[in-house]
Amino acid sequence: MAASDHISEPVQMEAHASRKRRTTDISDTLQNGSGQVISEADALIHSPDPLHPANHICELCKNFYTFGWVTGTGGGVSIRDDKHIFIAPSGVQKELMRPTDMFVMEYETKKYLRRPAVLKPSACTPLFLAAFTKRDAGCCIHTHSQWAVLVTLICEAGLQDHPDGSGKDVFAISEIEQIKGISRGGHGNSSTEILEGGRKAGNLGYYDTLKIPIIENTAREEDLTDTLEKAIEEWPEATAVLVRRHGVYVWGKDVAQAKTQCESLDYLFQLAVEMHKMGLNWVK
Amino acid sequence: MAASDHISEPVQMEAHASRKRRTTDISDTLQNGSGQVISEADALIHSPDPLHPANHICELCKNFYTFGWVTGTGGGVSIRDDKHIFIAPSGVQKELMRPTDMFVMEYETKKYLRRPAVLKPSACTPLFLAAFTKRDAGCCIHTHSQWAVLVTLICEAGLQDHPDGSGKDVFAISEIEQIKGISRGGHGNSSTEILEGGRKAGNLGYYDTLKIPIIENTAREEDLTDTLEKAIEEWPEATAVLVRRHGVYVWGKDVAQAKTQCESLDYLFQLAVEMHKMGLNWVK
Amino acid sequence: MAASDHISEPVQMEAHASRKRRTTDISDTLQNGSGQVISEADALIHSPDPLHPANHICELCKNFYTFGWVTGTGGGVSIRDDKHIFIAPSGVQKELMRPTDMFVMEYETKKYLRRPAVLKPSACTPLFLAAFTKRDAGCCIHTHSQWAVLVTLICEAGLQDHPDGSGKDVFAISEIEQIKGISRGGHGNSSTEILEGGRKAGNLGYYDTLKIPIIENTAREEDLTDTLEKAIEEWPEATAVLVRRHGVYVWGKDVAQAKTQCESLDYLFQLAVEMHKMGLNWVK
Amino acid sequence: MAASDHISEPVQMEAHASRKRRTTDISDTLQNGSGQVISEADALIHSPDPLHPANHICELCKNFYTFGWVTGTGGGVSIRDDKHIFIAPSGVQKELMRPTDMFVMEYETKKYLRRPAVLKPSACTPLFLAAFTKRDAGCCIHTHSQWAVLVTLICEAGLQDHPDGSGKDVFAISEIEQIKGISRGGHGNSSTEILEGGRKAGNLGYYDTLKIPIIENTAREEDLTDTLEKAIEEWPEATAVLVRRHGVYVWGKDVAQAKTQCESLDYLFQLAVEMHKMGLNWVK
Repeated sequence: MAASDHISEPVQMEAHASRKRRTTDISDTLQNGSGQVISEADALIHSPDPLHPANHICELCKNFYTFGWVTGTGGGVSIRDDKHIFIAPSGVQKELMRPTDMFVMEYETKKYLRRPAVLKPSACTPLFLAAFTKRDAGCCIHTHSQWAVLVTLICEAGLQDHPDGSGKDVFAISEIEQIKGISRGGHGNSSTEILEGGRKAGNLGYYDTLKIPIIENTAREEDLTDTLEKAIEEWPEATAVLVRRHGVYVWGKDVAQAKTQCESLDYLFQLAVEMHKMGLNWVK
Repeated sequence: MAASDHISEPVQMEAHASRKRRTTDISDTLQNGSGQVISEADALIHSPDPLHPANHICELCKNFYTFGWVTGTGGGVSIRDDKHIFIAPSGVQKELMRPTDMFVMEYETKKYLRRPAVLKPSACTPLFLAAFTKRDAGCCIHTHSQWAVLVTLICEAGLQDHPDGSGKDVFAISEIEQIKGISRGGHGNSSTEILEGGRKAGNLGYYDTLKIPIIENTAREEDLTDTLEKAIEEWPEATAVLVRRHGVYVWGKDVAQAKTQCESLDYLFQLAVEMHKMGLNWVK
Repeated sequence: MAASDHISEPVQMEAHASRKRRTTDISDTLQNGSGQVISEADALIHSPDPLHPANHICELCKNFYTFGWVTGTGGGVSIRDDKHIFIAPSGVQKELMRPTDMFVMEYETKKYLRRPAVLKPSACTPLFLAAFTKRDAGCCIHTHSQWAVLVTLICEAGLQDHPDGSGKDVFAISEIEQIKGISRGGHGNSSTEILEGGRKAGNLGYYDTLKIPIIENTAREEDLTDTLEKAIEEWPEATAVLVRRHGVYVWGKDVAQAKTQCESLDYLFQLAVEMHKMGLNWVK
Repeated sequence: MAASDHISEPVQMEAHASRKRRTTDISDTLQNGSGQVISEADALIHSPDPLHPANHICELCKNFYTFGWVTGTGGGVSIRDDKHIFIAPSGVQKELMRPTDMFVMEYETKKYLRRPAVLKPSACTPLFLAAFTKRDAGCCIHTHSQWAVLVTLICEAGLQDHPDGSGKDVFAISEIEQIKGISRGGHGNSSTEILEGGRKAGNLGYYDTLKIPIIENTAREEDLTDTLEKAIEEWPEATAVLVRRHGVYVWGKDVAQAKTQCESLDYLFQLAVEMHKMGLNWVK
C-alpha cells in the first residue's frame, strides 16, 4: 500500500466516535442479534469474534505500527477466508483502523461486496491477490520495514555479492537459527502443499540458504503486479518478495504463519544490516 | 518548543490529582452539561470528544513521547480549528499534559482567549503561526527527533553533497517508496490547494526528489520566525522545515496529514542516517 | 526452541476464544472450586495466582516478545517447581500463549503429566533439563536476541580475540558495572550453592571478567544437548551458554534470578556490539 | 545501585499477591482511614496520592525500565520531601517494585525510619545523599543507560578530545537545542539557587557548552561517594555526574526537573554516540 493517499476526515472521526458508515453494494438488509438492521455488506465485517478477519486486521495493524512496519499510512494486511478477501483501505492511519473501514471482495468473482463510501481500495490489492491465487495463501502482509529497504539497497550496491548467496536481485543468508522460522512456501495452487509448509518438515533447515527475490519498484504500486507474479513463479520456495527501496510482501497459509514469517524475515533483515556494518558476510 | 523551561509543580500535580486550574481572560461564565459553572475560556478546552483539539494534543504528545519526538519537555504540537489555535504550553512534560494546560488563541486577532495562570505560552507559537498563515495548515508538529538532527549534521559537514540533491542547506532523498507519503504542500494561502495536497494527486511520486530546507538554529526559538517564514516562501512545495542541530517543523491541512507526514519524514531521516553509515547516497 | 514449527490454529483460536483444551495423560478427574470437573492434568496448570508457573510463563513471554527475544515463535521459557517442570510448547506465538498451552513434566521421572493434544513439546526440553539437573536451576530462559547472535559472530570472526578475554568459543567482557548483575553460577547440584549465587557475595565483581562459553549450533535443537551439558560442566561459574548463530540459554535459581541475569547479559551483549563498532576492546 | 543483589522471593510474591510486609523500626501504631491498624513506619509509605514519593518512585521505575535505564535490577531513584528520603531497595526488579518495598530515612538524622525486613538498603544511598545535601536536590536518578556508558568509553579512549570540549574526564557537547533542557545546576546549598536552576533563565543556552564530569568506577558503589562529592564541588554548574563504565547520576530540585534533565542528557549521550559513529565532533 502506497504511503500516499489522503486520510479522509470521516474515517478518523469514526475511529473514535461513531460506529456508522455508509457502504456501497448494499443489495439487501439483515437483522443482527440485537434487532438492529444492518446491510448484507456490513454483516460481512460485524462480528464479536476478535479473530474475525475484519477485527483481526485492525489488531494486527495496531501491533505492526509499533514495529515500524506501517508508518505514515504505509504497508497493509489482507486476510482471505473461504469465500472472501478482507483488505484495509488505502492511505489511512493503519493503527487507527476500525472493522467498518474494511473492503470485502468475493474471492471467486473478484467483485467488491463491500466498499466504504469515502475510502479508496488499497493499491496493494492485485499484489495480495497474487499471493492468494498463486500460492493459496490465507494472509498476506506488506511492510515498509526499514530493514527490508536497507537489505535491498545493500544488494543494489553489490556490497554482499556472493556466488551462492546474495546478488543484485536476491537477498540470501545462511546458518542463522531464525531461518528455521521460514516455510519452503509450496510451489503451486495445492492447498495441501501450503499446509505442509507450516509444519516443521516444510520449513527451511539451519543449513539451507534462505533466498528472497528482489523486484524493482515502480511509480505506481499496481504496476508491481506483473513482476511480483513472475517472481512468485520463478521462486517456488519463496514465501516473500522484497521490493527494492520499498519494503516486502510476506504470505502464509493463515495469519499465524504469515505473521510469524514476517517477524522472522524482519529479524533476519535487521541482523543482516548489523552483520554488514561489521564487515560480516551474510552467507557463510 | 525549547527543551528548557521549568515545569511548574502545580501542572504536574494537576496532571494526576485535581481538575481545577485558574485561567486568565475569563470574560464570562457558562454552565456545562452537569450544571457546573465554567468560564468561557475554560469552555474552549472542555469537551468529551477525544478529537477536540485540547484532548487530541494530549493524546498525540503521549504517543510522540514514545517515539523520542518530545523528550525532556522538547517539541510540541498546535492545532487550528475554524477560529482558534490550541497550543501546548512551554517547558512541560509533554506526555503528562492535560487539556487544562492548553493555551487558546483567537486566530483572527492573535489574542489569547485562554492562558493557564502558572504556565508560559510556547516559544514555538510564532513558528506554528507561520505554518497556519502562510500554508493554511490545520496542524503543525515540532519534534526534536534525533534522526532529524543527524541529517542536518550530515548536511552541515557536506557528507552527502550532490548536484541535484542534498547540500548544506537542504536535505534531499529520492526513489524511496515512503516519499509518496509526503504532500507537495501547496504554495499559498488557498485552502483548496492545501486540501489538494492531502490527496494522492497532490503527493510526491516515487521518482520525485523530496527536498526539505534546513535553516540555522538561533539562541532563542522565537528568532527562528523570520528564517522559517522565508524558507516557507522560498520552498513552496515543502511541508516541513528542518532546523539545524534542533529538529523539524512539519505541518498539514489537518492532524492526520501533519502526523502521517511527520512519521514519513522521520522514517526517511532515519533511513538516510542508516544509508549514510553504509556509504550509500541519498539521491540515486 | 526452534523458530520453526507450525502454529496450530486451535491454539490461536483458544488464545482468544475458548478455554477448553483436550489433554492427554488424564488419569483422574477432580472438582475445582466452582464445582467444575477438571482433569488432574489440567489441575496442574489452573491457578488464580499470577506467579503460578503456567501463568508466569505466559506473562514473561509477553514481555520478552517486546524485547525481541522470542520473535517469530523463537525462544522459550521453562520453570521448575518442587516436583514439576512447566514448558511452553514448540512453535507457537510466544506472546499469545495461554496456561492451557503448557506442557507439564514430572521432574523425578521425566514423564509428561500433561500434554496439550494438538501441540508438540519444545525441542528445547533437553536443554532446559540440563540447567535444572546440572545446576539445580529453577528457571531457564532461551532467547534469539540479535545481540547474542552478533557477539557469537564477532567471536567466530576473531574480531575481539584477547589472551585473557574473548576467543572463538568464549565471549568475555570486563570492567562494566552491569557485570555485577551476574551470579558466579555455582558448580554442582547443591541447592545451597545455587542459592548462594543469588546473593551479592555470589555475584561477579566489577574487576572480574565475565566469560560465557559459546557452543556451535546444530541442525536439530535436541542435538545441542551434549555440547550444552559439556559446556555447563567445563564452565562451573557460567550461568549461561551462547549458541553460535542462534541465541543464548540463561538460567537461575528462580524466575527473578534467571530473568534479571538474562536482562543483564543482553545489556552486555548489546553494549559489546556497540563497543565493537567503535573499535573498542571488550576486555580492558 | 549495583546490578547485583538477589531479589528476595517474598518481595516478588508480594508484588503480585499480598499487601503485608514486616517492617523494622516500628515504634508505634496508627489507624488508617478504614480502621486498619498500621505502623508509624508504614504510614510513611501508604498514600492514595500517585505523587506521594513511595508511589511515584514505583511509577517512574516502571517507565525507566522501558528506556533501558534500570535493566537487570540496575539503577535507582530517590526522592526527598521536607523531612524524609525515600529510596528503592537494593537488587530488586525495579519495574515490579511496590510502595511497601521502600526504605525511608529521616533527612536530618540520616536514620532509617522504615526498613523492609527482607530487603537491603540501596548501595546508592550515600550518592543520593550527596546530591541532596550538596545541591539541595529533591530527586536523584541513577541509570545504567548504555548511551551514558558509551560516552564514558569514547572519552576514555580519547576519541573526542578537544581543547574546549571533551577529555578523558569530561563529556562535552555544544550547539544542540536539547542542551537548553539542562539547568546550570546551582552551586551551593541555597535552595533559591536550585529553584532558579529550574527556570529558563537558569538553564544552559544553545551556545553554552554542556560539560558533565566523569569519575572512575569503583569495585563497591559506596566507594564512589568521595569522588562524586568532589566532582559535585568542582563542577558547580553540573546537574549530573557520569561514572565510567557504569552509568550516570542526575539530580534536580524536584522529580520533574530530575526526570526531564535525565531524559535530555540521555538524548544527548545517544546523539553523541551516533555523531561519533559518523566522524562528527561533539563540540563545534
